[in-house]
Amino acid sequence: MEAEKFPIVQITEQGKSEFEGIVATEFSLTIILNNRELVTLLCSPTKLDYLAIGFLFSEGLLKSRDEIKKVIVDGQRGVVQVKTKEDKGLARELLFKKRFISSGGGTVKGASFYSDAYIQVQANVESQVVITPHQVFKLADEFRHHSQLFQASHGVHSAALCDTKSILVFADDLGRHNAIDKIFGECVLKDIPTDNRIVITTGRVPSEQLLKVAKRKIPIIISLTVPTGLGVKLAADFGITLIGSVKGKSMNVYTCDWRVVPHDE
Amino acid sequence: MEAEKFPIVQITEQGKSEFEGIVATEFSLTIILNNRELVTLLCSPTKLDYLAIGFLFSEGLLKSRDEIKKVIVDGQRGVVQVKTKEDKGLARELLFKKRFISSGGGTVKGASFYSDAYIQVQANVESQVVITPHQVFKLADEFRHHSQLFQASHGVHSAALCDTKSILVFADDLGRHNAIDKIFGECVLKDIPTDNRIVITTGRVPSEQLLKVAKRKIPIIISLTVPTGLGVKLAADFGITLIGSVKGKSMNVYTCDWRVVPHDE
Repeated sequence: MEAEKFPIVQITEQGKSEFEGIVATEFSLTIILNNRELVTLLCSPTKLDYLAIGFLFSEGLLKSRDEIKKVIVDGQRGVVQVKTKEDKGLARELLFKKRFISSGGGTVKGASFYSDAYIQVQANVESQVVITPHQVFKLADEFRHHSQLFQASHGVHSAALCDTKSILVFADDLGRHNAIDKIFGECVLKDIPTDNRIVITTGRVPSEQLLKVAKRKIPIIISLTVPTGLGVKLAADFGITLIGSVKGKSMNVYTCDWRVVPHDE
Repeated sequence: MEAEKFPIVQITEQGKSEFEGIVATEFSLTIILNNRELVTLLCSPTKLDYLAIGFLFSEGLLKSRDEIKKVIVDGQRGVVQVKTKEDKGLARELLFKKRFISSGGGTVKGASFYSDAYIQVQANVESQVVITPHQVFKLADEFRHHSQLFQASHGVHSAALCDTKSILVFADDLGRHNAIDKIFGECVLKDIPTDNRIVITTGRVPSEQLLKVAKRKIPIIISLTVPTGLGVKLAADFGITLIGSVKGKSMNVYTCDWRVVPHDE
């Protein structure tokens, strides 16, 4: 339940092989406090009752265990209902109305925005851009060289916009979502086109990042680490080639592997 | 500017040494769109104009560069003002009112909450609990053993509540803030006291996590990686011992190193 299996194409210098790989499930949990929808968190689908209660305490909406009357978990629907003995916290609860909290990326949207964003990118990314494994390994090396100075020892994330040959725009930030926003913001202000280009990131590719990238019609995302399950599903929906776990001369292609071709055209 | 220097006590089997270490700066950036305060992001303090513009595009508040009239960056105050030619987006902007977005942790609060939380923990964490380096290394080993199965290959974060001897409560999640909320939620529902206990995490310790932990009067936080600058400052303010970069038989103590003692009492 914490993880999902996906068919993955692994490409190394020795060639291509298919296997069933595991990625972490990205789960959407809505917390309902005294019959009012409070917040939706993206999380791993375990210990949902603990997460809901911990969240309510962290946010100051509950102060003591004695306030809790009932905790009802509906894992199927992704809902935890918490009922308190007294319902005095309305004013504070309203602060959280329509919040949508991502798993680790940190960016936040109104729930309405999330759906909007999804709809905006319903159209497939139709770019015919292709890339060779050699180009992916070369870009990943260049990217690591750019980011390692800071990232390795200080725990920041990096992101870059590339073409198949080299890095065009690079940014790092404590938040991987910020690093991606920085590269796209630079593109806007400097009139750098993003169509048919490639995004490379040190971070995972959760659903939220996939949406950011899909909106820019980016056909290929390369992550040095692993994506989430929802990231993989959205990439498949949008027709985006999602490449992960690029290490040395090995990489995993999660979706749309037709864009990874053996030789330059 | 991206990084700050702090005096760090490094402890290895060979003994103690002091050096000036570097941690990533955690910066608070407020985006003002057409004279209305929209959001505060925790981020790295570089490329603030790109971040603001990228954020506005990602959130769908801007659609084209032509809409932008002016971008004014005030790095000193941590403010980017964006002015558009037409001010038609009011309805959407209001969706974001009083948002506060963390650097990478993903948890979100109204700006008012953030200040509240800070005030709630103004009192120092006064616990006299102490820990030996040997205990820290042993806890870190036990924690890694718990988390490595999943975390190593699938990019999730883990957190645990411990005493000086062993792990009491363990959780993992895609989001490190969720992992922490899960352990505290379990403590609430199972009546496990958190006073005088220790939190260990695979993740960084940004300000947001520091606040969560300080609210529970936890005197010692151990991170397998590096904290942020604001995390270190808050730990010092609250009297919390912040230990980071625990690798093999080496660790860095960022604050309140009096709680790290050579031998069991």
